[in-house]
Amino acid sequence: MRDFSHGLAHLSINTATLRKQLGLPAMLEACARRGIARVCPWRDQVEAAGLQSVARQLGHTGIKLSGYCRGGFFPAADAAGLKAALADNRRAIEEAKSLGAPCLIMVVGALPGALSGQPAHKDIGLARAQVVAGLAASLDYARSLAMPLAIEPLHPMQAADRACVNTLEQALDICDALDPDRSGAVGVAVDVYHTWWDPKLEGQIARAGRERLLAYHVCDWLLPTRDLLNDRGMMGDGIVELQKIRGWIEAAGYAGPAEVEIFSEHWWRLPAEEVLDACIARYNTVV
Amino acid sequence: MRDFSHGLAHLSINTATLRKQLGLPAMLEACARRGIARVCPWRDQVEAAGLQSVARQLGHTGIKLSGYCRGGFFPAADAAGLKAALADNRRAIEEAKSLGAPCLIMVVGALPGALSGQPAHKDIGLARAQVVAGLAASLDYARSLAMPLAIEPLHPMQAADRACVNTLEQALDICDALDPDRSGAVGVAVDVYHTWWDPKLEGQIARAGRERLLAYHVCDWLLPTRDLLNDRGMMGDGIVELQKIRGWIEAAGYAGPAEVEIFSEHWWRLPAEEVLDACIARYNTVV
Repeated sequence: MRDFSHGLAHLSINTATLRKQLGLPAMLEACARRGIARVCPWRDQVEAAGLQSVARQLGHTGIKLSGYCRGGFFPAADAAGLKAALADNRRAIEEAKSLGAPCLIMVVGALPGALSGQPAHKDIGLARAQVVAGLAASLDYARSLAMPLAIEPLHPMQAADRACVNTLEQALDICDALDPDRSGAVGVAVDVYHTWWDPKLEGQIARAGRERLLAYHVCDWLLPTRDLLNDRGMMGDGIVELQKIRGWIEAAGYAGPAEVEIFSEHWWRLPAEEVLDACIARYNTVV
Repeated sequence: MRDFSHGLAHLSINTATLRKQLGLPAMLEACARRGIARVCPWRDQVEAAGLQSVARQLGHTGIKLSGYCRGGFFPAADAAGLKAALADNRRAIEEAKSLGAPCLIMVVGALPGALSGQPAHKDIGLARAQVVAGLAASLDYARSLAMPLAIEPLHPMQAADRACVNTLEQALDICDALDPDRSGAVGVAVDVYHTWWDPKLEGQIARAGRERLLAYHVCDWLLPTRDLLNDRGMMGDGIVELQKIRGWIEAAGYAGPAEVEIFSEHWWRLPAEEVLDACIARYNTVV
């Protein structure tokens, strides 16, 4: 396994981690000051700062992307909605390309309307079929821009409203269907928060292999967890066996960054500098 | 599929549903007045009322059990803890027999100490091995009393603190290892709350078959869900496809009751009579 105990060479910061404290430009400056070499920004943050401006700032600071958050949300209640989702994913692929992202993270969506509490229906099987169709329809364009799509299985507690792909096995079955040659055009983002509990995790990471492992996200699972979305823990504060899982990931061939992604009302209330210091300290000791 | 639109023949009430309103004797009376023919009581409620007294009341009222909640919690931090868990499971098996339960529901446990916020370690693989060992050690005694053990996979959001068996596939793999002859001595309890999200649910229910399907629990998944334990919904108030899943269960050979099990701060605040009325109305219309 790679030695993370010194330096920051393999650290990335998902910018959701500081979304309540800083805009993206200030976040990039804060990362640059510390020598953090990679980030994974969110589309709304990029839009607020301006795509070209962000691209220029990445050039100035030398910061690279570990991914771009996010495409997906394919299911819809009608044909117009399905079409709009495909158009939106084309734009996300183009933005990812403009920023030099190595992959576009795909949070695939679930029951249409569920995120606002008004699901149009309950048929998760239909949503799953629409996800596969949406990924298939997006893949040609993504291939034409050489932008890999990284399907992120989300925790089953988010299956109704955010993503109906909920295990690594399910995500890899989709990859196998869409890209049987393992070309690298579609793969997975493994986030320990979403996957640590899975009894098949080790085997499915091995199955994924280097060609399919496009991103690796870390944080921790707190005891107790008080919210289904915004109560993630800082690495080391919960029960995820981070080094065991990273061992599996690296044994499968992954050599990219460990991206810290913490949605947390607790950490969002602390100063950005303090959060970044904690990310670095934990990266060096427990990731 | 069986017709649930009239009568109560296949309804059972898990007594956790009314645990804040009534003691077990009053709950049994309330069920008897309505013609509810089955319940699944919890050990602490039986202990509070007295085992022999509960057994007598079941005799008077004619109410039968659909299961007994619960055995399990096998993992422990030391040998004494492992031994104590086995002894406690023997007592649970005996109590289930005394009450004429058709099966003992097994909530298998997870990281020792996690439920009180102080996990002794983070090794979920070790916990899973201790669960299999504990089930194996309990099975001989359970067989000797003809008391089937029903492994209940819990939702992955409860993997750290309540049960490290989190998918039906994982539970059935354990059943196959412990009882390859499908004797009926060990099987599963399928609770829609814990399993609805699983992309392999339909196939694994078919795999389970009549011999392994020992209990079927219903409630609903609310949008949004505000708590990881006590925010279950009344059937029809959420997004679970109840009749689709019951179709799979019955196609696999299950002919037992649908047991309503609702842990809910909302429903615990309402009068018991109102909750029972709702359970019956929803059983007749959406289960």
